[in-house]
Amino acid sequence: MKIVIAPDSFKESLTALDVAQSIESGFRRIFPDAQYIKIPMADGGEGSVQSLIDATNGELLGVEVTAPLGNRVSGFLGISGDRQTAFIEMAAASGLHLVPIAQRNPLRTTSLGTGELIKKALDLGVKKILLGIGGSATNDAGVGMLQALGFSFKNAKGEEIGFGAEQLQHISQVSLENVDSRLNDVEFEVACDVNNPLCGEYGASSVFGPQKGATPAMVKTLDKALAHFADVALAQLGVAIAGRAGAGAAGGMGGGLLLLPNVVLKSGVQIMIEATCLTEHIKQADLVITGEGRMDAQSIAGKTPIGVAKVAKRFNVPVIAIVGSLREDYGVVYQYGIDAVFPIIRQVSSVEETLNQGRENLLSCAENVARLMKLKMP
Amino acid sequence: MKIVIAPDSFKESLTALDVAQSIESGFRRIFPDAQYIKIPMADGGEGSVQSLIDATNGELLGVEVTAPLGNRVSGFLGISGDRQTAFIEMAAASGLHLVPIAQRNPLRTTSLGTGELIKKALDLGVKKILLGIGGSATNDAGVGMLQALGFSFKNAKGEEIGFGAEQLQHISQVSLENVDSRLNDVEFEVACDVNNPLCGEYGASSVFGPQKGATPAMVKTLDKALAHFADVALAQLGVAIAGRAGAGAAGGMGGGLLLLPNVVLKSGVQIMIEATCLTEHIKQADLVITGEGRMDAQSIAGKTPIGVAKVAKRFNVPVIAIVGSLREDYGVVYQYGIDAVFPIIRQVSSVEETLNQGRENLLSCAENVARLMKLKMP
Repeated sequence: MKIVIAPDSFKESLTALDVAQSIESGFRRIFPDAQYIKIPMADGGEGSVQSLIDATNGELLGVEVTAPLGNRVSGFLGISGDRQTAFIEMAAASGLHLVPIAQRNPLRTTSLGTGELIKKALDLGVKKILLGIGGSATNDAGVGMLQALGFSFKNAKGEEIGFGAEQLQHISQVSLENVDSRLNDVEFEVACDVNNPLCGEYGASSVFGPQKGATPAMVKTLDKALAHFADVALAQLGVAIAGRAGAGAAGGMGGGLLLLPNVVLKSGVQIMIEATCLTEHIKQADLVITGEGRMDAQSIAGKTPIGVAKVAKRFNVPVIAIVGSLREDYGVVYQYGIDAVFPIIRQVSSVEETLNQGRENLLSCAENVARLMKLKMP
Repeated sequence: MKIVIAPDSFKESLTALDVAQSIESGFRRIFPDAQYIKIPMADGGEGSVQSLIDATNGELLGVEVTAPLGNRVSGFLGISGDRQTAFIEMAAASGLHLVPIAQRNPLRTTSLGTGELIKKALDLGVKKILLGIGGSATNDAGVGMLQALGFSFKNAKGEEIGFGAEQLQHISQVSLENVDSRLNDVEFEVACDVNNPLCGEYGASSVFGPQKGATPAMVKTLDKALAHFADVALAQLGVAIAGRAGAGAAGGMGGGLLLLPNVVLKSGVQIMIEATCLTEHIKQADLVITGEGRMDAQSIAGKTPIGVAKVAKRFNVPVIAIVGSLREDYGVVYQYGIDAVFPIIRQVSSVEETLNQGRENLLSCAENVARLMKLKMP
């Protein structure tokens, strides 16, 4: 029996590899001779770099970067075992968690640090960059990121604009003169699971601005700033980003990235599926086990288990999900390829205790799933 | 497919029948055409009367009784659908929960109320009485119970002794003159899962006295009182109870009951198994599902799931347990016939919320167990 174990991480408790290992340990107690293929997964969000490193025998590299408010912090990126691909999470340099709550103001925050991570990846000579853009503190259309890569945005006086979305309205001249030429030799795959346009009612500022600290008045300013940026990009670079699906992701980062030469926006879990050759493994499997920290109705919107289940269903392979917790509304997942789902909690405990018991609870749950599978039923 | 569902209650949340119904509902979503036999179980403790009523289409009857400290309270007993058998829990009349914590004193508490329940059963004309003796507040060797049934215990002055274990030392004369003659026509099965003798280091007073409020000094007094009672019973009635296994159960109630004509002490779950004809049902089943509120290493000591599993294993029928919670030390249950066990908790919640979610969590867990069983595996 060949079993593919392809879970997401359990946030704040276990990495995807930890999860996969615990599930394997539980199953091995009952099926010691089965073949187990562990594929740590992610959906482009937190933990994606770690999962890609674990899936490719890669390495984590610390990089000092510019945080959203301009201070320097320790960031990181990943590089695959074959050194051909870099893995970046925007949040590692430009994340909301890097800005104290009292100082959250998306008019001021810059995505420069994410550009620095990309530059580091270019220094490493990779051919491909996988970039997750969730959890950002910024609304600057990726202008900071572009500046780090040599793009120049000048105001009417010929001065380079400063940090943050509020500066975008002053852009009058874009120059590509100093853009890092290595960008021509690298492919970007950007994990993007939203279709929001850059501006307007469903745009970056209206939909995501408030969670980054924008007041209703700020949202209007932000929206105008992004619209101006789109106008400039179209007029001076000939790139139409305003109407592109996903341009509004991550405070317009989705749009700014479209100014780079070789960029595609894709579903995060799809990027993971391809990066890990999941389909090849599942094609020959007898069972797929997936999982995530919390399964609910939102799980069908681009989360890992459903992405994994879709692949499995193409080959009629059964899919079991093992999850940290299960919300009342989870039932819809059955229609998306999950055949059965088991939450691992064994006792009433605090959140902290429950997170600490994750490994043991997972192992126990996996063992019992295997025990049930082994029962000879009529 | 024939499925026997024979769980205990989930204490403070669901009766055994509720549990069985929820499991059936979950399974029916996946196996609508299976045959389901629901058998509410118990182990002789709290909930046993309700399970026996549910298992026999019986009825619950309210009875006013004397509480352990002499006040009157509402008690209850059950009668089977065929009116041939009465079901009594000693705790319903003589339970520790009926005594305010500040007033707990096993020198004073009487088992009279339990005798009143038995008398009520005799009035109903039953042929058999199933009696659970867990959770008592008393240490009076069942003397109060015997008094309610017409036994007379007089002191040296020829006066009937009063309530409580402290009075036992004064017994000098036992009279059977007024004993209810209907006791000769009824069989007692007493649910008793402990082997403690009446007196000594492993006796009723030393082992169970402290949890009823006895200080170390009281334990000594209690132990002497029980020894005196045993001496009197042997000398005047010719019944040797001191050395009998189980005589120390329920503050010596196990011993006092041996003065009645037709009494056997049995394992509580065994009484339930016989009363519900569980073996006949399991013999022809393809699957047995059992469960209890909390499974742990103690579950092997006379608790319902293991009792049910033992029957199932005689016929090689697979046994799945669905439980409210699962303690770390539960693993030993696999050696006692449980093939797989699933805790139902789906989310981190308070005890109260978790108890309230019991029905929905059970149903979801049962559905997923059924889903997993239905998967076609290699």
